[in-house]
Amino acid sequence: MNKDEYMEEAVKEARNGMEKNDGGPFGAVIVKDGKIIASSHNEVISSYDPTAHAEVLAIRRASKKLGRFDLSDCEIYSTCEPCPMCFAAIHWAKIKTLYFGCTKIDAASIGFDDKFIYDVIRGEAKEQKVFTYPIQRDKCLTLFEEWKNKEEKTEY
Amino acid sequence: MNKDEYMEEAVKEARNGMEKNDGGPFGAVIVKDGKIIASSHNEVISSYDPTAHAEVLAIRRASKKLGRFDLSDCEIYSTCEPCPMCFAAIHWAKIKTLYFGCTKIDAASIGFDDKFIYDVIRGEAKEQKVFTYPIQRDKCLTLFEEWKNKEEKTEY
Repeated sequence: MNKDEYMEEAVKEARNGMEKNDGGPFGAVIVKDGKIIASSHNEVISSYDPTAHAEVLAIRRASKKLGRFDLSDCEIYSTCEPCPMCFAAIHWAKIKTLYFGCTKIDAASIGFDDKFIYDVIRGEAKEQKVFTYPIQRDKCLTLFEEWKNKEEKTEY
Repeated sequence: MNKDEYMEEAVKEARNGMEKNDGGPFGAVIVKDGKIIASSHNEVISSYDPTAHAEVLAIRRASKKLGRFDLSDCEIYSTCEPCPMCFAAIHWAKIKTLYFGCTKIDAASIGFDDKFIYDVIRGEAKEQKVFTYPIQRDKCLTLFEEWKNKEEKTEY
């Protein structure tokens, strides 16, 4: 299979999820050594889980399958430019290559405001939807110190 | 319970997870009507899931408990300023209030590079870890068009 065919699989998966009313028109596949090892579609509606975006689900499935949180030998194909949640998830998974179909502007135009969250992170949003307050930093720093001094730990 | 006590619960949860080697020193709780309805700690190591950050898990659990993806009547407490994945997840969950302990600079100083991903999104990173390529936008736009024209759908 080639790149176009992997993306076609992601589209097929997205259409399937949309038809089942699982969520929006988003699909993703993860490819390792030329084979699709995980595919997923948005399941926000059916699972009541706001984090159940296609890319996050594909990463979870691929990690589970491989039994490791490091997917640096995998590529991801997504029908849409990932939102910041999924984009960061791809970083945490150490995936190095991402192919996407529609842009975040295309997503905004059908009602998915990934772009708004990007604007917030970039300090370009005109309004604020989440109000953040720092509290108890001292107690949390103690925790961080304990991690730093912990002898048996897996770094990731 | 008051704000400080909710954060102390998040710290307790984080310490518990760290001691069990489930993941890093991160905990979160979600509060609704003055009651903790979900608590979680980082489980990246134990679950092999790079998306299993405390805030994402807390959101998943709270959504499941309430049977809805809209958590706009909830507040979240996290031992650390959320990474972009969790920060975006909080937006998708429509949570309006976030309390955090340590900052992303504190996290970077013990080896968790949330800050790097923020820098990438802001266009301030000196290197690139994920290479992105747009492909097959036409086929994906067709899909978006189908969503737009779909009669029975849940908007979110």
